[in-house]
Amino acid sequence: MQPEDFDKLHSVPLFQDLTEATLRELVKAAFLQRFPVQTILFRQGDLPDFLHILLEGSVQLTATSPERREAVVDILDSIEAFMPAAVLTGTPYLVTAKVVHPARILMLPARALRESVARDGSLSLAMIASLSRQYRTMLKQIKDLKLRTSTQRLGCYLMALAVQNGTDGTVDLPHDKRLIAARLGMTPESLSRAFSALRKFGVEVRGHTIRINDAVRLNQFCMPDELIDSPEPELKIVAA
Amino acid sequence: MQPEDFDKLHSVPLFQDLTEATLRELVKAAFLQRFPVQTILFRQGDLPDFLHILLEGSVQLTATSPERREAVVDILDSIEAFMPAAVLTGTPYLVTAKVVHPARILMLPARALRESVARDGSLSLAMIASLSRQYRTMLKQIKDLKLRTSTQRLGCYLMALAVQNGTDGTVDLPHDKRLIAARLGMTPESLSRAFSALRKFGVEVRGHTIRINDAVRLNQFCMPDELIDSPEPELKIVAA
Repeated sequence: MQPEDFDKLHSVPLFQDLTEATLRELVKAAFLQRFPVQTILFRQGDLPDFLHILLEGSVQLTATSPERREAVVDILDSIEAFMPAAVLTGTPYLVTAKVVHPARILMLPARALRESVARDGSLSLAMIASLSRQYRTMLKQIKDLKLRTSTQRLGCYLMALAVQNGTDGTVDLPHDKRLIAARLGMTPESLSRAFSALRKFGVEVRGHTIRINDAVRLNQFCMPDELIDSPEPELKIVAA
Repeated sequence: MQPEDFDKLHSVPLFQDLTEATLRELVKAAFLQRFPVQTILFRQGDLPDFLHILLEGSVQLTATSPERREAVVDILDSIEAFMPAAVLTGTPYLVTAKVVHPARILMLPARALRESVARDGSLSLAMIASLSRQYRTMLKQIKDLKLRTSTQRLGCYLMALAVQNGTDGTVDLPHDKRLIAARLGMTPESLSRAFSALRKFGVEVRGHTIRINDAVRLNQFCMPDELIDSPEPELKIVAA
């Protein structure tokens, strides 16, 4: 690994509290790899060989049913370790990972990772924090799916995007509509219906640009909830 | 804590690999408590004071929307730590925990737990295993919600119960139908419709007793999937 790549690793939350020595030990067997769009990093049912850590680009995690229905469980586009739960416990991946924007990925061999986690207390605390964050993110998605109609779900998604972008109410969709539908657990047709239904709450659609004209009314209809919609921050195990 | 209670703790998966000394240290501040049905152990939004570990009885985890809709995220009825992700990171609970069958619960003060986890490598590895298992369980629920129709979801739920009970195809529902509907993400009305729809695949309902007359046909319709329906076993971090 190049020295400038090594420096990048300090920006990975999982590695932030590690000493330089532990970090060097851990990445000795690791390598950085670029992947083009459409690359399958691993498939549902595979046993993990590596922990993939996304440094740049975007990756979609998809579940497939025996009848070949597909659902998007998550779209990763910031620095994030994929499925540490499977990698650490050596259990089959529950999803397939596919690159959707050209990606730069750090690959840590699973065995070396498990050894480091077993040996280094600060790494295992970082893993607990990462797993806790991902657990909470999944739980929020279950709440989103079970507590809301699809129209409310879309409305809350748009409002969260507006908050994230800090805009005055104009939002550019970060993915194509088919992918957004899959992430929200809808067919493309029900996504269109949900966009139409939001029109009477002041939501205007122009291709990929969405305008929220009346945030108060949209808010009253969608009922956004911090315990569902706010993205989980990086967490720490605080002993004191 | 009584000596006989202390012995019970060895059956808690989270504690199985701990030395007697560490275990004693950890439970010094802990206590056992019985709770009647309907007790609220904690509410969505509360900050955790304790890690609750269910030893006997049954507890339902419910999410509530701002408009007071409710969804059951999970029903715990075996030895299980509740929401370690919130307790370890000191973040608000995302769900409310309510006792549904009289419960016996070990309560570990959150601060003492975090200190022990930071100090004891074997405890933090056990926590990683527990969080991984719970993460995977939530991910399976998302797949169940996104990939299946409600009728398929009910069919798979019944087949999983039959496998779990090792029966010839007769299943007693473990909870009342309203709770099962909420757990599967349906209204009681859509649960009734789903039961009716399963009739033509040989599913007979007599109150709380369900008879699966043609497992092959039901199977063909529901398409059960090991990567959704099999309960996650207790996991370990295997370094070698």
